[in-house]
Amino acid sequence: MGDVAEKIINGEIRSVARLIRDIDDGLPEVRETMKELYPHTGKAYVVGITGAPGVGKSTLVDAVIGSLRERGKTVGVLAVDPTSPFSGGAILGDRIRMQRHSTDPGVFIRSLATRGQFGGLTQSTRYAIDVLDAMGKDFIIVETVGVGQDEVDIVKEAHTTVILVVPGMGDDIQAIKAGILEVGEIFVINKSDHPGAEKTENDLRAMIALGNRDNRKNEWEPSIIKTEALFNKGISELLAEIDKHSEYLRKISSSEGASKKKERIRILLRDMVTNRLMEIFSSQLVQDIHFEEAVESIYLGRTDPYTACDKLLLSQDFQP
Amino acid sequence: MGDVAEKIINGEIRSVARLIRDIDDGLPEVRETMKELYPHTGKAYVVGITGAPGVGKSTLVDAVIGSLRERGKTVGVLAVDPTSPFSGGAILGDRIRMQRHSTDPGVFIRSLATRGQFGGLTQSTRYAIDVLDAMGKDFIIVETVGVGQDEVDIVKEAHTTVILVVPGMGDDIQAIKAGILEVGEIFVINKSDHPGAEKTENDLRAMIALGNRDNRKNEWEPSIIKTEALFNKGISELLAEIDKHSEYLRKISSSEGASKKKERIRILLRDMVTNRLMEIFSSQLVQDIHFEEAVESIYLGRTDPYTACDKLLLSQDFQP
Repeated sequence: MGDVAEKIINGEIRSVARLIRDIDDGLPEVRETMKELYPHTGKAYVVGITGAPGVGKSTLVDAVIGSLRERGKTVGVLAVDPTSPFSGGAILGDRIRMQRHSTDPGVFIRSLATRGQFGGLTQSTRYAIDVLDAMGKDFIIVETVGVGQDEVDIVKEAHTTVILVVPGMGDDIQAIKAGILEVGEIFVINKSDHPGAEKTENDLRAMIALGNRDNRKNEWEPSIIKTEALFNKGISELLAEIDKHSEYLRKISSSEGASKKKERIRILLRDMVTNRLMEIFSSQLVQDIHFEEAVESIYLGRTDPYTACDKLLLSQDFQP
Repeated sequence: MGDVAEKIINGEIRSVARLIRDIDDGLPEVRETMKELYPHTGKAYVVGITGAPGVGKSTLVDAVIGSLRERGKTVGVLAVDPTSPFSGGAILGDRIRMQRHSTDPGVFIRSLATRGQFGGLTQSTRYAIDVLDAMGKDFIIVETVGVGQDEVDIVKEAHTTVILVVPGMGDDIQAIKAGILEVGEIFVINKSDHPGAEKTENDLRAMIALGNRDNRKNEWEPSIIKTEALFNKGISELLAEIDKHSEYLRKISSSEGASKKKERIRILLRDMVTNRLMEIFSSQLVQDIHFEEAVESIYLGRTDPYTACDKLLLSQDFQP
C-alpha cells in the first residue's frame, strides 16, 4: 500500500486534508490513492443536509456535530458550496464553520467547491466521502448550500437525506416539492418558534401524502421534525429519526436482491467513466483544427452552431 | 424552410409550445428546426432573474412583465425549475404563473424542467431562448429557482442578470457571494419594507466593493435596487437599471474585439458537442459487455470502481 493511503487509514489529518484538496482541484493522481482506500470504505453512515440559504444549515450541522460527539461518535463534515469561478468561496466556509469544533480531533470539516464541468462536484463529493470513511469517521455529514439540481444529486449520495426548511417560505415550498421532495427522508422545520411553523408543517404533510400516493417506491414515510438549532432544541429527536431510518435501510438492504445493488454500482461506474471521457474529449476537441474552423464559420455567419455541431461529430474520431 | 420553423417565426403559439416541450423532452428532432430558426435570433434582450426560494421571484417577474407590457414590449418567460426525477414539477409552475397574463397574446410563459445528465438544463434553456427570440419576443426573462451551480450557469446565458435577495438572510449571504456575486449585474432587495433591509444593503455594498477590488474584469459596477414587488414598488427603477446595463453592453460590444466574440462561440459550441457526445457514449457504454463484467466484479468485491473505470477506458473504442 502507498504511503499516502496508509496515513489516511491511520487518520493522519494532514494527509487527509491534502488528498481532499487534490480531489477538489481535480488532480488525476488521486485515483491511485482512491483505489487503495476503497477496501477500507463502507463503514461510515452518511447524512445529507440541504436547504435554501437562510434556513440555518450551519447552525443545525453544528448542533448535530455536538450531539454526535456526546454519543462518542466521530464526525466528518463536507460542506459543498456553490462555487465562484473567480474567488474561492469554500475557504471562507471552512473558517466560519470550523471555529467551535476545530480543536476536537474527533471532528474533521472540509469544504468542497469543485467547479468541474461534467458532474465534477458530485464526483468529488463521492471521492471525499470515501476518504472520510476510510479515515475512520463514524458519521459523515454532507451539507449543501442551495437547492439546485447539483445539490439534489449530491444529497442522493447520502444514506439519509435531511431537508431543512423554515416557516413562511410561502409559495416557493412548491419549488422545493418539485426538486427534492422525493429525495427527502426527513424534513426539518428549523426556527420552529417563528410564526407560520404550523402552516409549513401542514403544507409539508400534504406534500408528503401526495408524494406517497403518486410514487410508492418505498415504504419509508418521510417524517417531520421541528428544531430550534440555535438553542439545541429538537436535535436529539432528529438523531433518533436518523437512527430509525438507518435501521430501516439495514432491513431493506438485507432483503434487497443482487439486482438492486448491481444497479447502484452500474450508476456509479457509468458516471465515473462518462466524467473521465468528457475530460478527455473536451480537451481533445478544443485542440482540433475542425473545431476552430467551425468557430470561425459561426463567427462569420456562414453557418449556425447546430449545423456546425453535427459536422464536428461526423468528422471526429475520439479516442480515450 | 420547414413548416414548423415558419409557424414559429410567425409567432404561432401552438407550434412554439410544442417545440419547447420537445426541447424539454430532449427529442433529437428539434435540432433541425433550431438550425432554421437560428438566422432569426439575436434580437431579443434576455434578462436572468434568480434567488433562493421565498424571496418573491414569481411576484417580481409578474410585476416586471406588467411594466414591460405598459411600455408596449412583448415578453417571453422561461421558468427553469429544479426538477423532480419522478413528478412533473414544471407543469404546476406554469399554471401558477400564467394566471394573470395568460390571456395576453403579448406574453408567452413556459417552464423548463429537463433533467438531462450532461448540462441538459443549460442546453435546453439556450434552445428555448432561441425559440422565443425567433418568435419575436422583445424581452425574454429567464427565471431560475434555486441558487445551485446549474442556476448560475443558466443565468449566465442572459444579457443582464438580476439577483434577488430579501432582508434578514443572515450569514448565508456569504453563500450567495461565493456562488453568484460575480454573475450578478443588478441586485434587488425585495420585500425592502421588512426589518433588516438596511443591513442587507450594507452587506451587499461591502460584497460588491470587495468583488470589484479582487476582480476588475469589467467596468460595470453592480447596482442595488430596492423593491416591494407585491405593491409594484421599485419596478420602474429596476427596468431603468436594466436599460442602463443594456446600454453599457452595447457600448462594450461595439468596442470589443473579434477574439472575445469568438471565445463565446467556442464555449457554446464546445458545450453543444460535448453534450451530444455524452448522450451517445452513455448509451453505448451501458450496452457494452465489458461494462457489465466490470459491474459484476465490483459487486463480487473482486475490484474497486476506480480500477474498473481505468480498465473500461482502455478497452473502449467510442465512435460518435
